[in-house]
Amino acid sequence: MSSGARRDRERLVVIGGDAAGMSAASQARRMKGPEELEIVAFERGHFSSYSACGIPYWVGGSVPDRERLIARSPDEHRARGIDLRMRTEVTGIDVDGGRVRARDLATGEESWTAYDKLVIATGATPVRPALPGIELPGVHGVQTLDDGQALIDSLERAGGRRAVVVGAGYIGVEMAEALINHGFEVTVVNRGKEPMSTLDPDMGRKVHTAMEGLGITMVNETDVTAVLAGEDGRVRAVRAGDREFPADVVVLGIGVRPETTLARDAGLPLGASGGLLTDLGMRVRGHRNIWAGGDCVEVLNLVSGQQQHVALGTHANKHGQVIGANAGGGYATFPGVVGTAVSKVCDLEIARTGLREKDALRAGMRFHAVTIESTSRAGYYPGASSMTVKMLAEVRTGKLLGVQIVGREGAAKRVDVAAVALTAGMTVEQMTALDLGYAPPFSPVWDPVLVAARKAAAAVRAHHV
Amino acid sequence: MSSGARRDRERLVVIGGDAAGMSAASQARRMKGPEELEIVAFERGHFSSYSACGIPYWVGGSVPDRERLIARSPDEHRARGIDLRMRTEVTGIDVDGGRVRARDLATGEESWTAYDKLVIATGATPVRPALPGIELPGVHGVQTLDDGQALIDSLERAGGRRAVVVGAGYIGVEMAEALINHGFEVTVVNRGKEPMSTLDPDMGRKVHTAMEGLGITMVNETDVTAVLAGEDGRVRAVRAGDREFPADVVVLGIGVRPETTLARDAGLPLGASGGLLTDLGMRVRGHRNIWAGGDCVEVLNLVSGQQQHVALGTHANKHGQVIGANAGGGYATFPGVVGTAVSKVCDLEIARTGLREKDALRAGMRFHAVTIESTSRAGYYPGASSMTVKMLAEVRTGKLLGVQIVGREGAAKRVDVAAVALTAGMTVEQMTALDLGYAPPFSPVWDPVLVAARKAAAAVRAHHV
Repeated sequence: MSSGARRDRERLVVIGGDAAGMSAASQARRMKGPEELEIVAFERGHFSSYSACGIPYWVGGSVPDRERLIARSPDEHRARGIDLRMRTEVTGIDVDGGRVRARDLATGEESWTAYDKLVIATGATPVRPALPGIELPGVHGVQTLDDGQALIDSLERAGGRRAVVVGAGYIGVEMAEALINHGFEVTVVNRGKEPMSTLDPDMGRKVHTAMEGLGITMVNETDVTAVLAGEDGRVRAVRAGDREFPADVVVLGIGVRPETTLARDAGLPLGASGGLLTDLGMRVRGHRNIWAGGDCVEVLNLVSGQQQHVALGTHANKHGQVIGANAGGGYATFPGVVGTAVSKVCDLEIARTGLREKDALRAGMRFHAVTIESTSRAGYYPGASSMTVKMLAEVRTGKLLGVQIVGREGAAKRVDVAAVALTAGMTVEQMTALDLGYAPPFSPVWDPVLVAARKAAAAVRAHHV
Repeated sequence: MSSGARRDRERLVVIGGDAAGMSAASQARRMKGPEELEIVAFERGHFSSYSACGIPYWVGGSVPDRERLIARSPDEHRARGIDLRMRTEVTGIDVDGGRVRARDLATGEESWTAYDKLVIATGATPVRPALPGIELPGVHGVQTLDDGQALIDSLERAGGRRAVVVGAGYIGVEMAEALINHGFEVTVVNRGKEPMSTLDPDMGRKVHTAMEGLGITMVNETDVTAVLAGEDGRVRAVRAGDREFPADVVVLGIGVRPETTLARDAGLPLGASGGLLTDLGMRVRGHRNIWAGGDCVEVLNLVSGQQQHVALGTHANKHGQVIGANAGGGYATFPGVVGTAVSKVCDLEIARTGLREKDALRAGMRFHAVTIESTSRAGYYPGASSMTVKMLAEVRTGKLLGVQIVGREGAAKRVDVAAVALTAGMTVEQMTALDLGYAPPFSPVWDPVLVAARKAAAAVRAHHV
């Protein structure tokens, strides 16, 4: 398998055995059989094709075991004609030579593998600030299944029931729920003004209030400066601002950045976030035979027209499909994202799509922002719960710019209506006439999204500039 | 208030005090105060502005009392400067004279009221076939609050616990649930091949199976020919086909037709369904100062390009808003519908939007139809339930034509994504890239609608004609 060997069929090499990489490999295999295309995939970890998004629910106990999170095992991939090499880390890409260097982590042996086509799906790395004590036992990230297992073990070993979560984004709030499920007293320490900085602060404030209602202590606008050890050498507290928060377990949920060390060293083009830059076919810019997808790339935000990094399994799967189709000799494109995300903390549902106020300003747009309160079902129907919907519309065109929703059951997925409207470039006035499903168990006669659209449309009409 | 009286302000007359009529009146009042515009509304019934869609849930006991279904009482309307005259039936429209004749149902007195602007919101009438025994005690329609009260009283008086529902559309299946909640053994007799003829028969078959799972007896392709009386003079059975179904209560859920007797007598333009024909501003065609909306009009189906009658409260409210804006001197339009409807029977959720196979054929379109099975949440997440999604795409353009969904919790409202995509004229290929909300508690990594879109897009690509 040395680079110089002559081959009678094309070889596709995939770096990274998770969502994007293995979706690409699988789709390429569907396009071309093993007699035409050899597929070799390298994964440095112990697991392939697993749902990282499911880790908080496994840690929290909603998902009973780790195996449920694995969509397809290495052997299943191999049975489909993909030569998946686990615990094998790619340590270099030789673009000019058309080959990658990989190290077998068990033996330490390194060797080169030639490729005709290359897929880079190296994922993301959790942000892990260089703080004193950050490596102490009892301090955990939650990026991989190995991380999740280590945390579960640590929860059992913890001397007490106090947990500090660092960061109040999706991972932070989902881990807060997981720790509550384990009977921990949870404190979330957050640098931002309010939790969920993917929302505007006024909507983040609603999350804050709801989290406190769940018994979670929110500490905002505060930087963690150190993690402190107890006499047993395990974490005992977190220092943040001028306070100390006792902690038997610390979970880091600060976010992730694209893992593109290999790509950078190979001279491939990176964006401002550090993510790889691709064209619409997910081909790395300037490179005919290299594709990249998943958490290691930047994507186009269709609303702002700007590149951004979005680490989400749903995008990674779409990228993989597109890459596999193209690398397999077909044709597909990934047009971009509109920035949709949904999450929950216990029974609180949080959703957003499009632009926040600061995104719109950064993109050079003036907007109207409106906020309404409505309910998930007809007000008289049992189980109707209240929700808040915020909507942004561009002042001159009246085009929808973004929607944020905070509520209970039935709130979050309503954001999908706005995601489609954003993709279609609809105005908020057009949205007021949308024919959304209505029956008392499912919606008020005016769906909350329509109520928001009506208010936004009225604002656009009233303040024409 | 005779027609000859001189008036120093415009008068808007509204016929019908429910969703469309009172929304129109309220919106017109927001546009113009009482000093500029007099608003007189006539309602022949006992109630104004109530949710007819909520009646099955009130009868079934989910909604504890009738008052919850009333959005705004007559006195509340009057407090907003709307002269709402209850129990007053309009008996004639004199278009040339610009006046309506109304009868006070308490006194029998008739008088003429002149209008400058007229709104016709006369609603719909339940279909009540001319069968022997149809007027027997124990046989009930469920169109009005009075009907609902009569049925509730009848359920208490019934000598046994056997009910027959005639018709298996929305009203029929919702009433089946209501009767189950009252402990009745329920048989649904249905003329069509399968229940829910608003779905294709293959999807109706899934509803059929699920209803039988709920203990409901479904009798399809069978016409009711008579209702039979017992010795006490109450209903005792329903004769259908060559069988007799014992019944202590019979509920008619056959559907409704536009109530346009007044409009027809006045020479106003009606469509094939009997509904009034309007322009996009909801103005009756050819009549400058007459508007119509709600269950008594036809609307444009934006997918088929054809007029149709759709009796739904959500449309009636939108019509009312548009009429009120225009009659109040402003500007608004109702562009049409895409045919979205959601419903449930116990925990079974049913949704549809756009065209069925037969609608597409009737509209002159060839299509691909695909059906997929998926889940409401990530497969490993607790509470994930299966759902079936059927999708139709036009063969040449690849445009989405329609979606039907049958599933459990979290299934029905997913149809809204398709409703927006239909409105935007998206292709199923475009839909495959939609940025829908993903997190394990809310969706698999490929939302069921996206799974259907991928299969439909593959069909379009594979069979280009």
